[in-house]
Amino acid sequence: MNTTKEINSEALVSYIASHREEFLSGLKEFLRIASISTLPQFSGEIGQAAEFVANELRRIGMRNVQKLQTVSVSSNPFVYAEWLDAPGKPTVLIYGHYDVQPADPPDQWTTPPFEPDVRNDSIFARGAADDKGQTYLLLKAIQSLLATEGQLPINIKFLIEGEEEIGSIHIADFVREYPRHVDADAVLICDTEMFAEELPTITTGLRGLVYTEVECRAARQDLHSGGYGGAAANPFQALAEIITGLKDRNGTVNIPGFYSRVAPPSTEELDAWQRLPFDETEFLEKQIGGTALVGESGYSVLHRIWARPTLEVHGMPGGFAGEGAKTIIPAVAKAKISMRLVPDMDPEEIIASIRSRVKELTPPGITSQLSVLSASRAMVVTTENPFVKLAAEALEQVFSQQTVYVRCGGSIPVAAVMSEQLNIPVVMIGFGLPDDNTHAPNEKLSLSNFYRGIETIARYLHRLGREKAAVK
Amino acid sequence: MNTTKEINSEALVSYIASHREEFLSGLKEFLRIASISTLPQFSGEIGQAAEFVANELRRIGMRNVQKLQTVSVSSNPFVYAEWLDAPGKPTVLIYGHYDVQPADPPDQWTTPPFEPDVRNDSIFARGAADDKGQTYLLLKAIQSLLATEGQLPINIKFLIEGEEEIGSIHIADFVREYPRHVDADAVLICDTEMFAEELPTITTGLRGLVYTEVECRAARQDLHSGGYGGAAANPFQALAEIITGLKDRNGTVNIPGFYSRVAPPSTEELDAWQRLPFDETEFLEKQIGGTALVGESGYSVLHRIWARPTLEVHGMPGGFAGEGAKTIIPAVAKAKISMRLVPDMDPEEIIASIRSRVKELTPPGITSQLSVLSASRAMVVTTENPFVKLAAEALEQVFSQQTVYVRCGGSIPVAAVMSEQLNIPVVMIGFGLPDDNTHAPNEKLSLSNFYRGIETIARYLHRLGREKAAVK
Repeated sequence: MNTTKEINSEALVSYIASHREEFLSGLKEFLRIASISTLPQFSGEIGQAAEFVANELRRIGMRNVQKLQTVSVSSNPFVYAEWLDAPGKPTVLIYGHYDVQPADPPDQWTTPPFEPDVRNDSIFARGAADDKGQTYLLLKAIQSLLATEGQLPINIKFLIEGEEEIGSIHIADFVREYPRHVDADAVLICDTEMFAEELPTITTGLRGLVYTEVECRAARQDLHSGGYGGAAANPFQALAEIITGLKDRNGTVNIPGFYSRVAPPSTEELDAWQRLPFDETEFLEKQIGGTALVGESGYSVLHRIWARPTLEVHGMPGGFAGEGAKTIIPAVAKAKISMRLVPDMDPEEIIASIRSRVKELTPPGITSQLSVLSASRAMVVTTENPFVKLAAEALEQVFSQQTVYVRCGGSIPVAAVMSEQLNIPVVMIGFGLPDDNTHAPNEKLSLSNFYRGIETIARYLHRLGREKAAVK
Repeated sequence: MNTTKEINSEALVSYIASHREEFLSGLKEFLRIASISTLPQFSGEIGQAAEFVANELRRIGMRNVQKLQTVSVSSNPFVYAEWLDAPGKPTVLIYGHYDVQPADPPDQWTTPPFEPDVRNDSIFARGAADDKGQTYLLLKAIQSLLATEGQLPINIKFLIEGEEEIGSIHIADFVREYPRHVDADAVLICDTEMFAEELPTITTGLRGLVYTEVECRAARQDLHSGGYGGAAANPFQALAEIITGLKDRNGTVNIPGFYSRVAPPSTEELDAWQRLPFDETEFLEKQIGGTALVGESGYSVLHRIWARPTLEVHGMPGGFAGEGAKTIIPAVAKAKISMRLVPDMDPEEIIASIRSRVKELTPPGITSQLSVLSASRAMVVTTENPFVKLAAEALEQVFSQQTVYVRCGGSIPVAAVMSEQLNIPVVMIGFGLPDDNTHAPNEKLSLSNFYRGIETIARYLHRLGREKAAVK
């Protein structure tokens, strides 16, 4: 049935052009679902978003659509679908996620986070870039191919999950429990960003993530700071000591063995990064809006955020956080502390080290406990891999610019799991932009990138169908 | 009109005994009003509580009842009342407050904070001890005297405010703007506690309080810790550095000049504290419920909490404080930090010192700002003062135990203002107990102390009427 004919470029381009309104309206519908996976009260919306994706996959012509849960521990639904009528052709597993980050602080959004709004050729909403917009464009690429060609150039499997923002905590279980569903020659992920506007980008490495919560307990209950101040231990003071003990003023992490397995980037990679259009001052002023860059001396900013491990505090719940004054020594306070890992750091080893380091730093009068909320390994792929090379060609065709290879300081645990457990290449093409505000207020996605993304993915899959030898 | 006859003990005791139910039911009504002054959304309840106090003062026979606001800046109402028909007798200004602390964390209360519940001869509610219960017993003492004697033994002024829990921020203005209302020979405050159950106690010193909020700003908006971690400054890391820079692991405050004006307690005072029934281990295990006491070495616990200045962190709002994981580097984080002052520290001098110390401790990439939420001086009175001596006698008569003199680590700014601005003695008699959980969940007041408190105050005022010479 399947042929290796040339793609009908004209039909594809015209199909996408004539369906822009429909694609945008579908995306808006998807973005309206507040599928926040980090907060238990949004479990209903998680279900709705999974249902939306499943219906959409059915509608565009994918087959055997399923909502699967891991068996060992119940997970948010994994939405699976397949189209396997291209015998002899490679199989690509397309990954995305329908869950999003919380939208706080809500008062910093120009328009409400779950009421998508189009301004300046971008769509603003929580999840616009990370990752509903990029998940949806993958579906639209398949829809466009099936509509214009009547078939797909290769075999496709979709796996769209709902737990990426909580660390893809069940992806490893899923891969173990459903080996047939994830059996593929490569994984395609659209959950990264372009290095700069108009610059087609493939991400060849991701940092891993260990997310912890350190709880310090001092007393049976909150104490009046007048009656006890000077004699009772204060859990915030303890956390301040622990935090400054974990990371010093120069950005060096003081956890034994933290840097011992760090694999430095190759000289070629470092040279390529030097050539990227990146200005540290502009990064500070435009993207951060701060007064100074920080971090380990002796490393460039790109090296620090892509290939050096780091430690950050995200929040310190406990005590009195309301408006005004309340004079308590809190019984309990917590710090949400995460570490970004680089190749070849081992998450389990790091967890053991930080656990014993926190114990060591805990002052008298305080009982501390470290819980691990998620843990994932870093990953890298080589730019020589044919699945990567053909992706670069498709990008160059649509964007008319040479593709750059970068790493990403963020973490996509699924990439680490797939790369490690299945031992297949993971191709990460991103259509987000550096100022898309993922995880922050006013998240957006460029609509021009959204439409070009659809075309790129369609062309990429077609190339994979033609160059069978190279990719099997 | 006024005579110096003996108090009719029998009539007083029997009046109080036969009105127990009525007194308790009135107190419950007062406690049901959620008059939280630290949170703006409770301004309606603040008004209700002021109204309750004003009506009650009128009902018991006080005259010229007024709800006054400061003129310079609008305050919560000060409720004033007077009874001045005892010419030649001393005038006592009775102070209390109708505002309360917030009730969080609400889930740690056995019964709801604003639904008073009687268990084990105590009444549980926010404000039971601090200070509605103790304010209400002052009114009931006056009611009992007027009902049984038809008149008061001395001249009485009431000043019941609604801003004590936000640092009595307008009391100094009030004293300046309404000199006639505060003109008196002594001030009586019931807002402290007994040193131990059954041990009548007069508090001769209070610590002052400087309550600040330190805000650290790092970026224009929250940043993804994957994309920026390693290069962007983190305001929580900055606050941890500032906090550990302000107070070290041994409890020593590292703010220049912090200890330079500290007046040590007298040898007599230190000796008396040694004789108090106080066990440091019991204090740790029963009252704190912790694993170790902390603080400056070389000082007893009582010395540390009563006569040494301290610094505490109460809360650290900002970033992601919800359940689960959110990987942001927050744009802004704050720390609520207060200092307890002892004689003769100067609040303004301390504010200037901490401000410049915070600046000095602020790391690169961070802009910090310190706001002052309240500031009050410490105070001490001598145990030789006749107003203090007669109070001790009244307490001994009702409790059949020798009165002890203690200090209090907490702060009652009004005491400092009255003592300093009016230059009159401030008598602090407290009927709270050390385990009353003021400022914490499950606040309570012993009902036995409530009723004995009414009798004590009535007898004290009567003694003041008899011993005119000593107290004018």
